[in-house]
Amino acid sequence: MKLLKEKILEEGIVLSDSILKVDSFINHQIDPKLMQEIGREFAIKFKDMKIDKVLTIEASGIAPAMVTALELGVPMLFAKKHKPITMKDFYFTSVYSFTKQKTYDLTISKEYIKPGENVLLIDDFLSAGNAILGLQDLVEQGGAKVVGVGIVIEKGFKEGRKRLLEKGFHLESLAILDKMDGNRVKFIG
Amino acid sequence: MKLLKEKILEEGIVLSDSILKVDSFINHQIDPKLMQEIGREFAIKFKDMKIDKVLTIEASGIAPAMVTALELGVPMLFAKKHKPITMKDFYFTSVYSFTKQKTYDLTISKEYIKPGENVLLIDDFLSAGNAILGLQDLVEQGGAKVVGVGIVIEKGFKEGRKRLLEKGFHLESLAILDKMDGNRVKFIG
Repeated sequence: MKLLKEKILEEGIVLSDSILKVDSFINHQIDPKLMQEIGREFAIKFKDMKIDKVLTIEASGIAPAMVTALELGVPMLFAKKHKPITMKDFYFTSVYSFTKQKTYDLTISKEYIKPGENVLLIDDFLSAGNAILGLQDLVEQGGAKVVGVGIVIEKGFKEGRKRLLEKGFHLESLAILDKMDGNRVKFIG
Repeated sequence: MKLLKEKILEEGIVLSDSILKVDSFINHQIDPKLMQEIGREFAIKFKDMKIDKVLTIEASGIAPAMVTALELGVPMLFAKKHKPITMKDFYFTSVYSFTKQKTYDLTISKEYIKPGENVLLIDDFLSAGNAILGLQDLVEQGGAKVVGVGIVIEKGFKEGRKRLLEKGFHLESLAILDKMDGNRVKFIG
């Protein structure tokens, strides 16, 4: 996605060989216009998949997932990292984040995943793929099916893509980062 | 806001005299079309306030804040409850949540609040007003000014409104709940 790649080149800051800071427009401050375009792009890529629901993880996944759901005309659901006291009947799974070097739980209320539904997973970053596999686990606990995975920025030098393709997922990443050395960002494809 | 009130009457569930469950369309599952209308409504209410930025709190504030920022044509920023390891230079404040009965920290990166900016605060719920006052603290640490507060659902039986009006805030709530007894939701106004 040209607009996104240009923005990454303009504002992204390489913090290490595996961490790109994009908190001026993706995951702290958000550029709503760019986010709307991201939603339109995902909606085009997954338009034939008969999506019933878009699922993501709080907090950084919410913005891209919501605009995608809006374009597709379906509800959006975000998995919670901290189960609310009011949530009584839920699916949960544990996810290890290499980036944050810790394990966290993901929870969704049972009432919002229905057997037979086609679910599109959206997230801001793809690295090892653990978060997406955690969401898949939640979807399948509810008898629904993951029919697509949309990623805003993929770390192309990590094993996420390989692991998700092995599962047979339809994976679409809007920008794929090549290994970062020095301050340079390069894209694959 | 008529559409929102109708949705609350249809899908909101009274869990206690002070807790209304709206996680089928506001803060777990999200109705993106309704959210878009919420953004349009806030944009109309605050269109003359020369807003430079919309600020909210992760996670449930992100959706309404983003659509509002999109309609106003300005950036959106969300305060984080868990400071990322990559954030080095930040403002923070502590907020006590009566609903969750615990204190949490709010953090924003210094680079995204600039002196002189007019900031609109958006949140999904207003209860005692502590979260909004925490956001105001962050905004003022950065030398910027809160020029408006937009709330999706206000608990009209709590002291939030009184406290915010005492500060001189321009407060707009799209639905104001009256005291809930039994299973009934009633609105004020």
